[in-house]
Amino acid sequence: MKNPVLKDYPHILLGADYNPEQWLHMPEVLEKDIQFWQEANMNSFSVGIFSWSVIEPEEGVYNFSHLDDVMDRAAEAGGKIVLATPSGARPHWLAQKYPEVLRVNERREKLLFGERHNHCFTSPVYREKVQNINRRLAERYKDHPALGIWHISNEYNGNCHCPLCQAAFREWLKKKYHNNLDELNRAWWSTFWSHTITDWEQIESPSSLGEYRVHGLNLDWMRFVSDQTIDFLKSELVPIREVTPDVPVTTNFTGFNHDINYWRAKEVLDVTSWDNYPSWHNDEEPACYVAAKTAMVHDMYRCFKNKPFFMMESTPSCVNWKPVNKLMRPGMNTLQAFQAISHGADGVMYFQFRKSRGGMEKFHGAVIDHVGHQDTRVYREVQSLGARLKGLDELVGVGTKSEVALVFDWENIWLFDDIAGYHNKERKYIPTCEKHYYPFWKNGISVDVLDMDGDFAPYKLVVMPMAYMLRPGVEEKIEAYVRGGGTIVFTYISGIVDENDLCYLGGWPGGRLKEVFGIWAEETDTLYPSDRNHVEVDGKIYTAVDYCDLIHLRGAKALGAYQEDFYAGRPALTVNGYGAGRAYYIAFRDTGDFLVDFYEKLMTELALVRNLQGELPENVTAQRRGDFIFLENFGENETVVPLHRTYKNYETNKVYPYECVLAPREVKILVEI
Amino acid sequence: MKNPVLKDYPHILLGADYNPEQWLHMPEVLEKDIQFWQEANMNSFSVGIFSWSVIEPEEGVYNFSHLDDVMDRAAEAGGKIVLATPSGARPHWLAQKYPEVLRVNERREKLLFGERHNHCFTSPVYREKVQNINRRLAERYKDHPALGIWHISNEYNGNCHCPLCQAAFREWLKKKYHNNLDELNRAWWSTFWSHTITDWEQIESPSSLGEYRVHGLNLDWMRFVSDQTIDFLKSELVPIREVTPDVPVTTNFTGFNHDINYWRAKEVLDVTSWDNYPSWHNDEEPACYVAAKTAMVHDMYRCFKNKPFFMMESTPSCVNWKPVNKLMRPGMNTLQAFQAISHGADGVMYFQFRKSRGGMEKFHGAVIDHVGHQDTRVYREVQSLGARLKGLDELVGVGTKSEVALVFDWENIWLFDDIAGYHNKERKYIPTCEKHYYPFWKNGISVDVLDMDGDFAPYKLVVMPMAYMLRPGVEEKIEAYVRGGGTIVFTYISGIVDENDLCYLGGWPGGRLKEVFGIWAEETDTLYPSDRNHVEVDGKIYTAVDYCDLIHLRGAKALGAYQEDFYAGRPALTVNGYGAGRAYYIAFRDTGDFLVDFYEKLMTELALVRNLQGELPENVTAQRRGDFIFLENFGENETVVPLHRTYKNYETNKVYPYECVLAPREVKILVEI
Amino acid sequence: MKNPVLKDYPHILLGADYNPEQWLHMPEVLEKDIQFWQEANMNSFSVGIFSWSVIEPEEGVYNFSHLDDVMDRAAEAGGKIVLATPSGARPHWLAQKYPEVLRVNERREKLLFGERHNHCFTSPVYREKVQNINRRLAERYKDHPALGIWHISNEYNGNCHCPLCQAAFREWLKKKYHNNLDELNRAWWSTFWSHTITDWEQIESPSSLGEYRVHGLNLDWMRFVSDQTIDFLKSELVPIREVTPDVPVTTNFTGFNHDINYWRAKEVLDVTSWDNYPSWHNDEEPACYVAAKTAMVHDMYRCFKNKPFFMMESTPSCVNWKPVNKLMRPGMNTLQAFQAISHGADGVMYFQFRKSRGGMEKFHGAVIDHVGHQDTRVYREVQSLGARLKGLDELVGVGTKSEVALVFDWENIWLFDDIAGYHNKERKYIPTCEKHYYPFWKNGISVDVLDMDGDFAPYKLVVMPMAYMLRPGVEEKIEAYVRGGGTIVFTYISGIVDENDLCYLGGWPGGRLKEVFGIWAEETDTLYPSDRNHVEVDGKIYTAVDYCDLIHLRGAKALGAYQEDFYAGRPALTVNGYGAGRAYYIAFRDTGDFLVDFYEKLMTELALVRNLQGELPENVTAQRRGDFIFLENFGENETVVPLHRTYKNYETNKVYPYECVLAPREVKILVEI
Repeated sequence: MKNPVLKDYPHILLGADYNPEQWLHMPEVLEKDIQFWQEANMNSFSVGIFSWSVIEPEEGVYNFSHLDDVMDRAAEAGGKIVLATPSGARPHWLAQKYPEVLRVNERREKLLFGERHNHCFTSPVYREKVQNINRRLAERYKDHPALGIWHISNEYNGNCHCPLCQAAFREWLKKKYHNNLDELNRAWWSTFWSHTITDWEQIESPSSLGEYRVHGLNLDWMRFVSDQTIDFLKSELVPIREVTPDVPVTTNFTGFNHDINYWRAKEVLDVTSWDNYPSWHNDEEPACYVAAKTAMVHDMYRCFKNKPFFMMESTPSCVNWKPVNKLMRPGMNTLQAFQAISHGADGVMYFQFRKSRGGMEKFHGAVIDHVGHQDTRVYREVQSLGARLKGLDELVGVGTKSEVALVFDWENIWLFDDIAGYHNKERKYIPTCEKHYYPFWKNGISVDVLDMDGDFAPYKLVVMPMAYMLRPGVEEKIEAYVRGGGTIVFTYISGIVDENDLCYLGGWPGGRLKEVFGIWAEETDTLYPSDRNHVEVDGKIYTAVDYCDLIHLRGAKALGAYQEDFYAGRPALTVNGYGAGRAYYIAFRDTGDFLVDFYEKLMTELALVRNLQGELPENVTAQRRGDFIFLENFGENETVVPLHRTYKNYETNKVYPYECVLAPREVKILVEI
Repeated sequence: MKNPVLKDYPHILLGADYNPEQWLHMPEVLEKDIQFWQEANMNSFSVGIFSWSVIEPEEGVYNFSHLDDVMDRAAEAGGKIVLATPSGARPHWLAQKYPEVLRVNERREKLLFGERHNHCFTSPVYREKVQNINRRLAERYKDHPALGIWHISNEYNGNCHCPLCQAAFREWLKKKYHNNLDELNRAWWSTFWSHTITDWEQIESPSSLGEYRVHGLNLDWMRFVSDQTIDFLKSELVPIREVTPDVPVTTNFTGFNHDINYWRAKEVLDVTSWDNYPSWHNDEEPACYVAAKTAMVHDMYRCFKNKPFFMMESTPSCVNWKPVNKLMRPGMNTLQAFQAISHGADGVMYFQFRKSRGGMEKFHGAVIDHVGHQDTRVYREVQSLGARLKGLDELVGVGTKSEVALVFDWENIWLFDDIAGYHNKERKYIPTCEKHYYPFWKNGISVDVLDMDGDFAPYKLVVMPMAYMLRPGVEEKIEAYVRGGGTIVFTYISGIVDENDLCYLGGWPGGRLKEVFGIWAEETDTLYPSDRNHVEVDGKIYTAVDYCDLIHLRGAKALGAYQEDFYAGRPALTVNGYGAGRAYYIAFRDTGDFLVDFYEKLMTELALVRNLQGELPENVTAQRRGDFIFLENFGENETVVPLHRTYKNYETNKVYPYECVLAPREVKILVEI
Repeated sequence: MKNPVLKDYPHILLGADYNPEQWLHMPEVLEKDIQFWQEANMNSFSVGIFSWSVIEPEEGVYNFSHLDDVMDRAAEAGGKIVLATPSGARPHWLAQKYPEVLRVNERREKLLFGERHNHCFTSPVYREKVQNINRRLAERYKDHPALGIWHISNEYNGNCHCPLCQAAFREWLKKKYHNNLDELNRAWWSTFWSHTITDWEQIESPSSLGEYRVHGLNLDWMRFVSDQTIDFLKSELVPIREVTPDVPVTTNFTGFNHDINYWRAKEVLDVTSWDNYPSWHNDEEPACYVAAKTAMVHDMYRCFKNKPFFMMESTPSCVNWKPVNKLMRPGMNTLQAFQAISHGADGVMYFQFRKSRGGMEKFHGAVIDHVGHQDTRVYREVQSLGARLKGLDELVGVGTKSEVALVFDWENIWLFDDIAGYHNKERKYIPTCEKHYYPFWKNGISVDVLDMDGDFAPYKLVVMPMAYMLRPGVEEKIEAYVRGGGTIVFTYISGIVDENDLCYLGGWPGGRLKEVFGIWAEETDTLYPSDRNHVEVDGKIYTAVDYCDLIHLRGAKALGAYQEDFYAGRPALTVNGYGAGRAYYIAFRDTGDFLVDFYEKLMTELALVRNLQGELPENVTAQRRGDFIFLENFGENETVVPLHRTYKNYETNKVYPYECVLAPREVKILVEI
């Protein structure tokens, strides 16, 4: 059952991005850093990110001394290095000599050198130069005892519209559409507005100066951007896999990155990891909701490879790039780390170990501040977290079992960004998925996050909010899943279009789903911001906003009805028995606690297993890996958690027969006894 | 008195944009469409809009089969076709082969192929290609029995800054300024900021990268853009007029289009028509105000040619391009159609008959939805409307008689957009015109909408809000009109500049208007958003916002006075007897019901004829064509309308001696008996 | 003690920008203007601004007749001319013939001809053409009796990114960094994100299309822009100084212009002057606060050269370019003029004497309106002001003595614009300086405004808000100042970085300031908009927003403590006795009256001299030049000012033994008797 990331290193990683190259002129700083790192109970550094200009200061001249140094020190201390390839930012000389590596933006402007994450992902020159430096790194450190895992590039994102990319896009399209323009024209419905394409050369990437409302083009472009980024990642891996076949590789993802479909990108990696920067303590959302949103992303990263992942970046205090950069309150850093672990992380890393003295991130939180000593609130908390993690080797590689799957699909992000219709500002696809996730988090029920191509069979319940587009096979899979006894929940604006954004003819939800759900939906009423309707379910009134699907029963049973307007009395919530299963359709968007009430009822009916028996207090969740139960208090108050079985504290061995008390932002690890 | 649009077809048109070219691969759809159309009691299709890529798939290769097909079917069913020229969107091959047809934007960026409505209106190549395809269409269908009217292009708009257009602009200027740069420099007051032009080649269209605050240039540029668009329209008409001299032509205008002065464009058309998409049921305006705004535009379109017009597009349910795309409530489609008819429309058309399956407008309302059958709320309402319209042949060609003229001038739109001064965000020229129109709508008094070059003589009352600029002759016309017994109403910020945006010297309102109104205005106080003054008129207090002109009486009588600030006691509303007439000056902007009170008093004094005697209930108006009185209830409640004479319902023959009841969104057609 | 601007003209100037070149075709206007000007008791015109296209209508052809005319008339009337060089807007022919004079924007787009203030400040051609026209002007008028002072160009601002400027920027950098790229790389901390520069040619000005987050680059670019603008100004002066060595020069500055460090620009001028357009009577700020903000800028302009300055532009009624252009209420023009004088101005000028008939500023207030006569509210007020100023010759050249210095540093504007961290929208550097200035204004205590390189020694109190960056020597100067008995006030976010925006290592406030203030600051908590903390000082509770520094006492005494959150009880206000002086640290941003209470206490403790003994009523201030005390009422109500000594009204000789009464917007000039 255990599936550890690093075969020979059975410890939770506690590490940080580290940039010794910024301090080479101050060797005393480098000395102290190693000492501070060890005393903080840390065991890992991520290095080499953005180091290109130091390790290859001019073309073909290499200088690895600072990397040698940190790797040797880490090895000496028994730690592990996360070693990055440097493609996240190319040196000046490279752009100066080979301008093709610079991007062209959607307005067809050639970008100047600057920033980072900004290479043309098609450029053969850039791919060659990256493979060369990656090979050098791999060859140098392939046998180094500190080399733990590869960190390929950094936070891939963005796109490029240069002629090389235009040509690559056309090739991608030719392949997809079998070299057949008729097929492409049909998929893009290009007769509309007379945009029929009669020559492949007529195709250009979307641009605000040209074509930007051919939705099929937009969708294919985003698929291409994602595929091309993954292709670049693959090309980075060629020398890495060749020289260090046994060293695992990851790259640091960024939550719901707009530009890359991570469900596809994860295939080429051994481990997934992500950079996690929630807006804790913000003044717009309750703490429990920030926590649940973050938890949902952790769950997705666990599910990518169905094994432990790394939280590759996080801050121990604040970031510097949000509109407001509030300090994380005492304990929040520890809770943030344990939250990741409780959802499946086996590594907790910070950006950054030591604060830069200059540059754009000099006010980003770090383990060591500009003051340069250990006597800080932040350092002490990291140190104490490190001490706790040392006792948790047993957790490494342990998995999670879920009965519930939430379906979140990357291509729906692109589609909801692009739709012309409904409420053109309030689509809220991701927030809606989060709102459907929240009731499970609140009740301490583990959830897997899948995309629509995932396997539904293992789950008692599949929740699939706003499933606007259905790829081929999904309709059939849903039908089989429900027929075979599964329970599925759909919402408004679902099953509208096929994989090319062409509307289903014959009514929606598309095809056989009308039978599965026992309804057809005639219209969607889109409400103005201050418009309200109400829905009664089980005698309780809920408030509908934004969207009200007007549906007809075709076998389903109405569980709730609209209370107002010309569709008063018509069904707003339905269930249909289909085969051995059930299919629910939520026709409206709720502002309050409808989803909590609805799913809590379903939890009971489906007898879903809770990680901790009984109800949980507000702001507290229970997450589980194997036998380890994590009680996490995201609230600002001390809270008593009633216990219906007897547990002991795994770290202290204290036994809690009836209840345990959680301080604000405290996490306790329990095991049943 | 009757002036029908289509000489040999004495029926109200009920039609829709139709795009069979999108469904050629599904002939069963095309079959059903004709059946659905007939069963919906419709009698017209608008076709050919955006069909260029199908009818000329490559240069010089033509394919009219789908048009033949729909025209033949329409003829068979006794219907009429609105046949479009396809210039609204050119095919890919044309832009690929002749890039000069693509626009250059104001930043001097050459646009890529994409979107629609985006040709260079100067390009000789584009004009030639359009004339060619228009000629082909005309020759093919000139004798077709279904050909009812030409629909030239689609919603012309926008502008182009390419070198061809720059040259054309300079020619336009040379003509206007008699090839004399001194004259141009004087008109543009170019000594200011040392912008004197000493070579015609120095002149460039306005650009945010260059000159954008020379108001004379900006104004001339907009005049050129408008003229050049009309010139393009004229060039489209050359083959049409030649081949089908007896077929009327229209083009679909769009409300208050910014780029074209429709008062000039209408000259080259036989019929005007417009695309009408009000935001019914929105959450920011009362229903009666949305209705009155729409009514005012209808009135303007009737007045363009002083004959019936077409509502060329409208939606039967919702659009897809507004921020919020709410469903039109049951009955609203019918009421919207009758509103148009009651103000002079003889044709009611939808965009679109069948919803596209893909593309940017696939969620725009249509008669036939993706579900593909007739059993929908929307279809049934269209069908029932069609049935009613069949009984209204007597209405066709009937005109409206108005005693009131509202002056709305297109060039003032451009000027108010461009002024540097006053309240730089809250000019509100069009909304102010709407607010002056509303009291008449509310009281069921017909209004004609003119531009300042219109003939004032036929009217008892001329309302001319915010007449900032006066073209040559207008001053004299107003003087003669009032002297001859007319009543005119002016407001703040009127009579300030001449046709070149040069301020009148000697005080404003300009020239002799100071005598006509018996005042001179010294200053305009522009208020901050939360500033308020108050004005007392007839013992009632009104609230002043945004603008307070500080005027001096020079013969006029003060009817109201400011209550506060340093101009307390000074006149805020004046009337001047001049010759046989009277001239009112409203010096302030009101937030409440001042305009209603003011105009209601004037209605009594001038004994203006109401379309229905007596007061109308809230949200209800009465409009009239000949003997037909339309009672329209835009409210959400059933409403009793008291009747002071005896009327019968023209459609049902039911007689109403004392009152009649209107359901929410109901329209009744009465005739006096 | 007297230090007049114009040696032989011992009168307060009352003048206006005047553009006779716009009226050459209407000579009767020019005649009247001179008459109106004299009758308004004015004695100055500013001419020649934007006259280039008239005085050099084509290259090498000159026409000075209209300037001759106005100068002769002015001389005849005993007035003085402020003569402008015309570089503020170049003529069309110059840009057409020498396109290099046009700017390139930061997106590397070449600008078209247009607007004003838009020359490339590097272009050798433009510099040559400007020197030529300046020399012609100087030679023509060097002996003219009306020539009072040079007005170089107009409101310099903006920047240019053309290749000439890129090259000049690189030269600037080479000089600064001793031709040493290592030094530059260290200063820019360019190892971060691998941006090490290995070739000077790699350096480009910041661009949104390239590098925009290398803060060292951004800062050096702004320094270069400022220096290059000053260098351009110097090049303008070459012929001026050569031909008219005895005529003083000024240029009209604009408040806190973003692009030019006026503390450096003032060095090359004889007199400073500025264009002052407060938003009097706005609906968002109390009148007293608008007044204090304006007063602070006046004080800065007096301190630039430590001698009288000119208010070179102001409006007598309203402007035309603000979002809302409200009329200045009666008396406001007079009060605005006297406010300038009371803070050290010896000249009060308007933009503009006669309103343009066309162009972008035709609705900007002027002494003579389009109506063209004197019988206006505005004219009469100017006339009456002129009459009063005639009696104030004794004031000319008189200075002000201050015990308080407020430190406002231009480079901090750029830095606070650019920081990535803290609250990324609510930096509020200038508003914070204004809030620290306000308590002194309210109490009638004169303040000098310095930049951080100023001499602190003469002051009892130095207030230095948000001193984020400290240039070399400032730390030492502060230390010496406090040690020697001075009192200094610092706030949150101070002493963070050195002159290259590199953070101080070892904690902040940087270096020895930790000893001077007796604290070190560990973290800054940045609050969300609705977050609040509270601070108790002397038993009174204040509200903290935006920023709360978390500091440790290292010898200082806590005067106030945070009341909430995890840092409740920790110091929020401290004082440290250091040497013979004291150093205060205000760790939080207050929303209410903390600063007023704090500084009022300090005024008492330091026994600061008030310009008028006793407390002042709300909205009233007392300012002083020599023996002249100006009582200024910015409120809307008549107000009684209690007097603790006996004063007489300098203008009327009326004696006030106990009190005097100020009408709304009245100013009285008192002298003690």
